[in-house]
Amino acid sequence: MIESRTVAAGTGLAELADTGLLSPVRAGTPVEAAVGDRAWLQAMLDAEAALARAQAGLGTLPVEAADAITAAARADRLDLRALALAARETANPVVGLVQALTAVVAADDPGAAEYVHRGSTSQDIFDTGAMLIADRALRIIRADLAAAADALAGLAARHRDTLAVSRTLSLHAVPTTFGLRAAGWRQLILDAEIRLGRVQREGLPVSLGGAAGTLAGYLEYAAIGADGRRPEPGAYLDRLLDAFAVETGLARPVLPWHALRTPMADLAAALAFTAGALGKIAVDVQSLARTEVGEVAEPGGAGRGGSSAMPHKRNPVLATMIRSAALQVPVISAGLTQCLVSEDERSAGAWHAEWQLLRECLRLTGGAAHTVRELAAGIEVRPERMRHNLDLTGSQVVSERIAAVLAPLLGKAAAKKLLTEAASTAERTGRHLSEVLEGLSGLPDGITPAALAALCDPAGYTGAATALVDRALRN
Amino acid sequence: MIESRTVAAGTGLAELADTGLLSPVRAGTPVEAAVGDRAWLQAMLDAEAALARAQAGLGTLPVEAADAITAAARADRLDLRALALAARETANPVVGLVQALTAVVAADDPGAAEYVHRGSTSQDIFDTGAMLIADRALRIIRADLAAAADALAGLAARHRDTLAVSRTLSLHAVPTTFGLRAAGWRQLILDAEIRLGRVQREGLPVSLGGAAGTLAGYLEYAAIGADGRRPEPGAYLDRLLDAFAVETGLARPVLPWHALRTPMADLAAALAFTAGALGKIAVDVQSLARTEVGEVAEPGGAGRGGSSAMPHKRNPVLATMIRSAALQVPVISAGLTQCLVSEDERSAGAWHAEWQLLRECLRLTGGAAHTVRELAAGIEVRPERMRHNLDLTGSQVVSERIAAVLAPLLGKAAAKKLLTEAASTAERTGRHLSEVLEGLSGLPDGITPAALAALCDPAGYTGAATALVDRALRN
Amino acid sequence: MIESRTVAAGTGLAELADTGLLSPVRAGTPVEAAVGDRAWLQAMLDAEAALARAQAGLGTLPVEAADAITAAARADRLDLRALALAARETANPVVGLVQALTAVVAADDPGAAEYVHRGSTSQDIFDTGAMLIADRALRIIRADLAAAADALAGLAARHRDTLAVSRTLSLHAVPTTFGLRAAGWRQLILDAEIRLGRVQREGLPVSLGGAAGTLAGYLEYAAIGADGRRPEPGAYLDRLLDAFAVETGLARPVLPWHALRTPMADLAAALAFTAGALGKIAVDVQSLARTEVGEVAEPGGAGRGGSSAMPHKRNPVLATMIRSAALQVPVISAGLTQCLVSEDERSAGAWHAEWQLLRECLRLTGGAAHTVRELAAGIEVRPERMRHNLDLTGSQVVSERIAAVLAPLLGKAAAKKLLTEAASTAERTGRHLSEVLEGLSGLPDGITPAALAALCDPAGYTGAATALVDRALRN
Amino acid sequence: MIESRTVAAGTGLAELADTGLLSPVRAGTPVEAAVGDRAWLQAMLDAEAALARAQAGLGTLPVEAADAITAAARADRLDLRALALAARETANPVVGLVQALTAVVAADDPGAAEYVHRGSTSQDIFDTGAMLIADRALRIIRADLAAAADALAGLAARHRDTLAVSRTLSLHAVPTTFGLRAAGWRQLILDAEIRLGRVQREGLPVSLGGAAGTLAGYLEYAAIGADGRRPEPGAYLDRLLDAFAVETGLARPVLPWHALRTPMADLAAALAFTAGALGKIAVDVQSLARTEVGEVAEPGGAGRGGSSAMPHKRNPVLATMIRSAALQVPVISAGLTQCLVSEDERSAGAWHAEWQLLRECLRLTGGAAHTVRELAAGIEVRPERMRHNLDLTGSQVVSERIAAVLAPLLGKAAAKKLLTEAASTAERTGRHLSEVLEGLSGLPDGITPAALAALCDPAGYTGAATALVDRALRN
Repeated sequence: MIESRTVAAGTGLAELADTGLLSPVRAGTPVEAAVGDRAWLQAMLDAEAALARAQAGLGTLPVEAADAITAAARADRLDLRALALAARETANPVVGLVQALTAVVAADDPGAAEYVHRGSTSQDIFDTGAMLIADRALRIIRADLAAAADALAGLAARHRDTLAVSRTLSLHAVPTTFGLRAAGWRQLILDAEIRLGRVQREGLPVSLGGAAGTLAGYLEYAAIGADGRRPEPGAYLDRLLDAFAVETGLARPVLPWHALRTPMADLAAALAFTAGALGKIAVDVQSLARTEVGEVAEPGGAGRGGSSAMPHKRNPVLATMIRSAALQVPVISAGLTQCLVSEDERSAGAWHAEWQLLRECLRLTGGAAHTVRELAAGIEVRPERMRHNLDLTGSQVVSERIAAVLAPLLGKAAAKKLLTEAASTAERTGRHLSEVLEGLSGLPDGITPAALAALCDPAGYTGAATALVDRALRN
Repeated sequence: MIESRTVAAGTGLAELADTGLLSPVRAGTPVEAAVGDRAWLQAMLDAEAALARAQAGLGTLPVEAADAITAAARADRLDLRALALAARETANPVVGLVQALTAVVAADDPGAAEYVHRGSTSQDIFDTGAMLIADRALRIIRADLAAAADALAGLAARHRDTLAVSRTLSLHAVPTTFGLRAAGWRQLILDAEIRLGRVQREGLPVSLGGAAGTLAGYLEYAAIGADGRRPEPGAYLDRLLDAFAVETGLARPVLPWHALRTPMADLAAALAFTAGALGKIAVDVQSLARTEVGEVAEPGGAGRGGSSAMPHKRNPVLATMIRSAALQVPVISAGLTQCLVSEDERSAGAWHAEWQLLRECLRLTGGAAHTVRELAAGIEVRPERMRHNLDLTGSQVVSERIAAVLAPLLGKAAAKKLLTEAASTAERTGRHLSEVLEGLSGLPDGITPAALAALCDPAGYTGAATALVDRALRN
Repeated sequence: MIESRTVAAGTGLAELADTGLLSPVRAGTPVEAAVGDRAWLQAMLDAEAALARAQAGLGTLPVEAADAITAAARADRLDLRALALAARETANPVVGLVQALTAVVAADDPGAAEYVHRGSTSQDIFDTGAMLIADRALRIIRADLAAAADALAGLAARHRDTLAVSRTLSLHAVPTTFGLRAAGWRQLILDAEIRLGRVQREGLPVSLGGAAGTLAGYLEYAAIGADGRRPEPGAYLDRLLDAFAVETGLARPVLPWHALRTPMADLAAALAFTAGALGKIAVDVQSLARTEVGEVAEPGGAGRGGSSAMPHKRNPVLATMIRSAALQVPVISAGLTQCLVSEDERSAGAWHAEWQLLRECLRLTGGAAHTVRELAAGIEVRPERMRHNLDLTGSQVVSERIAAVLAPLLGKAAAKKLLTEAASTAERTGRHLSEVLEGLSGLPDGITPAALAALCDPAGYTGAATALVDRALRN
Repeated sequence: MIESRTVAAGTGLAELADTGLLSPVRAGTPVEAAVGDRAWLQAMLDAEAALARAQAGLGTLPVEAADAITAAARADRLDLRALALAARETANPVVGLVQALTAVVAADDPGAAEYVHRGSTSQDIFDTGAMLIADRALRIIRADLAAAADALAGLAARHRDTLAVSRTLSLHAVPTTFGLRAAGWRQLILDAEIRLGRVQREGLPVSLGGAAGTLAGYLEYAAIGADGRRPEPGAYLDRLLDAFAVETGLARPVLPWHALRTPMADLAAALAFTAGALGKIAVDVQSLARTEVGEVAEPGGAGRGGSSAMPHKRNPVLATMIRSAALQVPVISAGLTQCLVSEDERSAGAWHAEWQLLRECLRLTGGAAHTVRELAAGIEVRPERMRHNLDLTGSQVVSERIAAVLAPLLGKAAAKKLLTEAASTAERTGRHLSEVLEGLSGLPDGITPAALAALCDPAGYTGAATALVDRALRN
């Protein structure tokens, strides 16, 4: 039996604990505390208390007992580490939790202790607790994403017309604007927000099935509570589910989901999407922050981005941490998705594999969301470097345009040949493409030097970039 | 330049080809042909033709040219293997495809050849083609899932009251019904259907960005087509996107998504969910089909389920194939999700990694869906074996119930002690639990032998199983 | 600057900490403490101290300074959580650690503080610390595996001739022995041991590269320590690497591996193999422990395997926990392997993604190894149930044999036809196959009832099972 | 029954086939044909023939029969697609293959047909065939890696002293040499080669277990072949395994490995390592090839690296294709590793999931190895751009060095303060660091302008780079 005592100071919890040392992306961020062991224990206790209140509302147990259980269901009254250790006996922490909670309730109100965990099963409590944790974590993550999206909207608006070069397959492609790039980052965050919001609104149900998904234990106790008058199962089921959903603020599932793991898979997918989307922003920032490129820099500050060896460095550490999460969450999330393959009415292992995987997905994604918020708010943008880089190749970035213009005049093949040679000459000699073209014989009459200069101006070849920013920001 | 000729018979295509030998779950199923190389080539050609028609509708190119391109855009006029080989030169198959298509068009109508791929970029064509493929594959998959769900609804209804034992952590738990199990399987398929349907309705956009997502090339050609009168970029963008969406039947994206890979990640998530959900059904069928359990058998037929060594076997091969897909798709899908981390305006590798992963997810999930349809339609259910197994432990499956009933009479602790001893005696002696309990002194007065016998009847302890089936089938 | 103070009681570390509540497979096992945050911090401090001693041995810094650094390098003198939080500033915990360690050294011996982290870089310290952690964890894991292999060797020897039925694709196949099954489990553990041992012996190198893998900082300080006499780089490199390897007990790498992540990938592979191998044992135990099968049971004990709802259950919780690890490690390990794709001289994210993934692989695999040791030592084997199950199908398990015997006498086709019909009759009527065969006309003369009975005895058809056990145990 | 006929021209094989269109990294490379369906079919036929010859050598069947089977075992005599379709009946292609092969043998030599697949099981043939395929593919892959390593050795030697800047966390760090970078790439390839070589030498065993790993069928036929004189099982087992190993050129396993999947997991690990290692080279090449960096370019050639839209581009397509493989193989390989969790004596699904995953790992890794060979042989190196980039930050890349030199003279703290300010001034004003330092008061006397200039020369701060190259090339 697990006694309820607090950990004696220095009993080595600190030695075992994971306090974030290996995971800077989430160390100290709000989501970390929201999904920690103590929060998880509290969420399971919240589930026990909500269940008791729901049953009390239906007359299955005395309201006073539900009140006593609710009062006792506080994580600081239980010994977290003892529960963790006891979980090895039964492969889950709820059996020990029920014993410990019963003892705490009994100490307050012996009669109420009989009513703890009535008709319930470990998985109902664990999974309902997990959904409460997910709900709380998603709230935090979504707030960070919303703030990041706002900051990026501002960035896109401010740089709506800031010329920059686009890059495809590592090389300069054609002109674009920094505003369009920022609008794209924001769009990915909005996409993440939609997916997380959908899961939070519809995808986080209470777990209520009893020993194997028939609710038989709940019904048996309901009959006992009603002096043997057996309630009609369907009606009682509906009322109990509704009451439990209300008490927890979670959704009502169609069927008990002990072995139908849709909610876990949905969380896995939305979190992997979010982490991946933030990772895209991170690698773009790194690409743009490279020493040779220098188009953006991360927000600085005392100590931020320092190196233990090199005094001159200001590393893009926010992007680095975000990317570290983006590299982890998709594979961890695949582990969660695989647990859909969950045999029988409760899997001997697939259920148990989900727990740490889910927490890690929430924690890493939440840390990345918090970090992207800081990055979006403080990123330093350098339009002059963008312009400088855009000019690096001497108008080669508009070669597509000139090819398009010459084609109807010279024929597609001749135009392409002429342009390929000119581009090659420009690259070899370091001269500007317009200059090289000017010097060529064989240009059509309409193509005057002034026309050539205009065609070669990157500012004239940003296509619909500005219109795209406007449209995206309306979204 | 890629010439358009058909593969000479026997040039070794067969030697290289993947014809399904290593993937029975999809060999010969409808989705296989729908996502094969030839179908993919056709889909890219469909994208080229639709783009030409959309541009023609806007006056950017002659309607006759669009007609010629549409007529030429037939996969059987190109040399598939030659295109595959040429793709190594540019890391994608579209550059070669454009050359080959241009040659075919030129053979029919030299003037029209100028208008192939106008203003476009490889990724617009490839990604639009991929979305067309996904659309066609999802149609097939969803039809198979709908048929499987129907069959399972029938099964759940027929076995609404068929008693069975539930199993948790590998062991018998409490009574349930086979109907509830079948309703759970169906529910997972409905969940999959919802997710796939959402992607198909909203998540499959055309790709239209030009060289780097600004549509500059499209606009330049629009100006040329309009004799130099430059269209307002936003208005032209809207009209071109709308027209391309209409021509392809795909959705319109908020922004060009060359490096914003939401559609791929959404497909990955929905397909991994589906494969995982079907895998759950498969492992349940295997668990129930075990020789010692024998509660279900797969549909048989000549040769079906045979062994190369053992004449007596009828292996659950449908479940085996489904499970083989469920083991593959989640990890493959994680690879797709990771490609969200896609640097710059077009990634040098992350885009290219998606293609085969996407096809494999579609193909395996589609094969599994087709297979589950056959399984659901033909599964053989053996109620008498279910009843037999339910009785194997001599009423231990109702121990939860008796503990609940005795607790208020004896006190929780005393009741549990009495029951634990009785269960142990029953197991040791092989006697029925009700018999052992009857023989005990210390039972409360109200607990007569008749009452005990009633309590020990598994049929009386199925809780809300029937009501749950009814509710689920209304869904 | 990170001050060195211990966490004030109740500052919330417990709220954030991961103490194993969600991971029973490793809660309280020896590996948990060996890879926890405090152990990791200590290992990095060990690396700093070993580096100082190695440099002192080469005259680069005073021996007294190395002694002072060694004395100060104790995790309990630093504030773990403060370091974790500070790591967000630089995306790694070493920058803060160096500051904090310097302060502790300075408090003891101000002159020595100058010599902390001389010429070094964060990654040298972190990666060397990680290798020390891996070394310690592998020691523990391998000891547990060795003990489990011993127990399984005993099991295989004791049950060398214990008849059992084999199962393929969920169904009874042919007779085998339990000894062969146990020998197979042991073989997988030996395979894991070989792979882990190889990594431990050859695959755990010190990290020593300085800022970017050239050791320039180390050489510069060596020159300063030698009053400006610059050591020959190659000779100094060799001596420093050798000394650092000796001080840490780790291997010497060919090249600095900041961005050549072979050691991480090797660990990932060996740990994923081990977890997967143990998972195979776990699913076999679950398959054999099923209520209907009952051929093995897990070691029991007070509370072990209990259910929160059902008094009669003794769940296979050890196998469940092992399987939960086996479902997690391969995907987590894939995340580690992907970090091989590590750009430049130090990746901005791929390095950082490794840390928690590596720990989780070590921790889960170590927990599973500890758990399999307990399982192997205590598993309860039930030969009588094995015999009972073997007879369940009335000799169908020898149908392969009878087909082989009749084929030369009747012709292959006729033999198969006869046997298929007999098997079908046996199954329909519940009669024993030998009985059915006896009643058939058309049997060859040599096949007497006695011969038939002998052929149908499963004990006569175990092939080389015993010889295989003998050979495997010699391994 | 599967008839042996060749595919009628145009029956749609081309429509279904995967001919490499979506996987340029392997299209047309040697490994593609070596692991294709036809090669796989041939490998399984090779296994059947080798088994017959091994049995003939032991007197279990007539040598003439083995000869006839060997003569008939040609893939072009069977209908590949028909076998793929038939595999759905039994969840594996071997049952159909045995029927088809038997028919072909019977057509040649009716008596020999009785001896096809004697005592064997599908998995023995499939897995032995898979090992033959792996052996052939590894041979190809290792040859490509060896050639690439040679080319990189040449590159490292040629650029042993070529100055370049190192980059960490995206930013310039300290000076290095291009030779050291190339030596690191080569080292990773050597690491891959060691791991693949180890698997090829020791890790590819024949599969020989019969119906469920006891070899009972083989022994039964041996007795029949010896007129009922039963061979001693252990001795026969040893002789048959040895003979089968000799006939196939594969290794001899300790135990039948139908459900002990070490060989598959070993292949998965070595292939994931290889693909990841090659991916590191690819991202480095991309990083160095960026327009702003320009330190390397890929080998060009007609059409190579072209864009469908932009005439000026020469994309790093080889690196792109290699990276596309590196993004896929680790997750696919994780799927293979998970199949270690393989229940019973043959898994109902985990075995079947391996096949396509293994082929894809071989094919992608083989394609990447072939591509890296071309890349290594032709990469264009631009020392002048390396020097240019090294000077971009005006000596900030030696700030670590100057800090080291000043520390003993000024005290560590004062030195760092002075240098941080100077670096900041240099960055703000665009002046060279040495110039800024010169102008400072407070510099120690020994630090003359000449000394400063020497300290600031990047060529003087490459540490042990050259020595490391020399040591690595000796490896």
